[in-house]
Amino acid sequence: MTTPVSLGLVLDLAGTFAFALNGALTAVRVARLDIVGVIALGSITALGGGIVRDVLLDALPPATFLDWRYLLVAATGGLLAFALSRQLERLSSPITVFDALGLSLFAVTGAVKALDHGFGGGQAVLLGAITAVGGGTIRDVLVRRVPTVLQSELYAIPALAGALVVVVTAALEGPMLLGALLGAGLCLAIRLLGVGLRLDAPRPPGGGDAGREA
Amino acid sequence: MTTPVSLGLVLDLAGTFAFALNGALTAVRVARLDIVGVIALGSITALGGGIVRDVLLDALPPATFLDWRYLLVAATGGLLAFALSRQLERLSSPITVFDALGLSLFAVTGAVKALDHGFGGGQAVLLGAITAVGGGTIRDVLVRRVPTVLQSELYAIPALAGALVVVVTAALEGPMLLGALLGAGLCLAIRLLGVGLRLDAPRPPGGGDAGREA
Amino acid sequence: MTTPVSLGLVLDLAGTFAFALNGALTAVRVARLDIVGVIALGSITALGGGIVRDVLLDALPPATFLDWRYLLVAATGGLLAFALSRQLERLSSPITVFDALGLSLFAVTGAVKALDHGFGGGQAVLLGAITAVGGGTIRDVLVRRVPTVLQSELYAIPALAGALVVVVTAALEGPMLLGALLGAGLCLAIRLLGVGLRLDAPRPPGGGDAGREA
Repeated sequence: MTTPVSLGLVLDLAGTFAFALNGALTAVRVARLDIVGVIALGSITALGGGIVRDVLLDALPPATFLDWRYLLVAATGGLLAFALSRQLERLSSPITVFDALGLSLFAVTGAVKALDHGFGGGQAVLLGAITAVGGGTIRDVLVRRVPTVLQSELYAIPALAGALVVVVTAALEGPMLLGALLGAGLCLAIRLLGVGLRLDAPRPPGGGDAGREA
Repeated sequence: MTTPVSLGLVLDLAGTFAFALNGALTAVRVARLDIVGVIALGSITALGGGIVRDVLLDALPPATFLDWRYLLVAATGGLLAFALSRQLERLSSPITVFDALGLSLFAVTGAVKALDHGFGGGQAVLLGAITAVGGGTIRDVLVRRVPTVLQSELYAIPALAGALVVVVTAALEGPMLLGALLGAGLCLAIRLLGVGLRLDAPRPPGGGDAGREA
Repeated sequence: MTTPVSLGLVLDLAGTFAFALNGALTAVRVARLDIVGVIALGSITALGGGIVRDVLLDALPPATFLDWRYLLVAATGGLLAFALSRQLERLSSPITVFDALGLSLFAVTGAVKALDHGFGGGQAVLLGAITAVGGGTIRDVLVRRVPTVLQSELYAIPALAGALVVVVTAALEGPMLLGALLGAGLCLAIRLLGVGLRLDAPRPPGGGDAGREA
């Protein structure tokens, strides 16, 4: 199976940028962190998923650390968010939208990288999802929130769906460019729809929302 | 030193299942998380210790990711806990008992795996303990609790004891089956006894329980 | 580029010891943890940065796990802090000073190790900073604090500065002993000056300190 290498890198860097914006805005929103804190959280959010992915794939040192472009994109996203924070923070959606974009792009690139490393379809789907939710989970832990992946609003499910589209496309030997865009698009759609409609996956029998964080 | 490979896998999967139940029930108990959150936390708790172990042993990609049985057992445990949550959550002990079972089994399998990889006895004891407490520590961090391993009630000590039994058995070239069961049993006994009697290890001079979480 | 190997190990162990004291005192200060919790947190703080560094460098298994001296130094530091906790905890600075010492030493040894592994200057600076802040960040997460690296008081900047001095010295083929001591000294000076004068890096436009933790 041949994957468009340059497309894979572009999508990965785009996802990195999206998560950098998201992480940096989170740093600004959560507390008035200084420029170092904002860039640090943006970078950790942007690079975290890729690092977890590369550890699981035994693809060390991680690409996000070896390739200067990842670090540059992450830092740039952080700086940009810092500079535009006042304008952006009046709106609540940018944080969520950037996170959804990063989620979608990483679900696809994570699955592609797993397939490229010879892993089976099921593991590639799982790894795509892990790459997608990894950075955001580390971000949430650092700012002392229960990670989004553990809460509702469909976070892991769209990531799994996006990765699945990629894996199915590869299995059918279809055009990977289309598979990647379809997968990312599907993930983005499910995620944003879920947020917009406040859809939840089934909850345990017994009802009640005691203690749930929105 | 020859270890019963099939026994090692069975114990490792059993520990995985125990931690999956524990993690999933924690997700239900802490907040009414949806099915995805419950299975996610159950899986992270179940697989976390093994992943940390494999990174330290440089046994990548981690077995818990390569071998489908681990993922299946983890997800099954999570689903089961989700379905039976209402019945189980009236009791406070299942969470603690499953955690103690996972702790005991992983203390043993972690030590065995370290010995199999050629590490010395001391490192194997340490690695067994790390494997045992690893998943639960990640679980606690994700739900914003100070990890059990840092609090009292004898958590790391029983894990170290169980791993030590395994290492001593190997050093004496005794039967590993017996060493494994003895070690797990010892760890389980110390842990549950400590919980039951609320025994603590020595505290720093100066007294007072200010700020301690039960 | 030849580095004084024995000096590198001495500095690394010294940094490990400093962070062990810092982590253990944090465990005593945050809550009256028992001796196991104090040694555990001291060890995690002391060894965490080195483990993250070795994963990123693909130098597994991590030196901090392979070499008994690291584990011995970490445990010793933890025990010492536990025993002297009452005397030490009346003062607020020891925790900060030990952390600054660990930060400075690890910034230097992390950069040196990256260069030894053939990484470029920029990556070595980054890795020095990551090694320096890594242990403290894990410590903060475990005791449920927003990590110091994300807050002000100049934490990442001095680490980057110290690592930069090392990298520049190596690039100029200067004496590494001097570069290491200068780098550690610079980092220590900036960090302690920042704490003393409560200097902050620039904050995002919009003013206000809402929600900031000192």
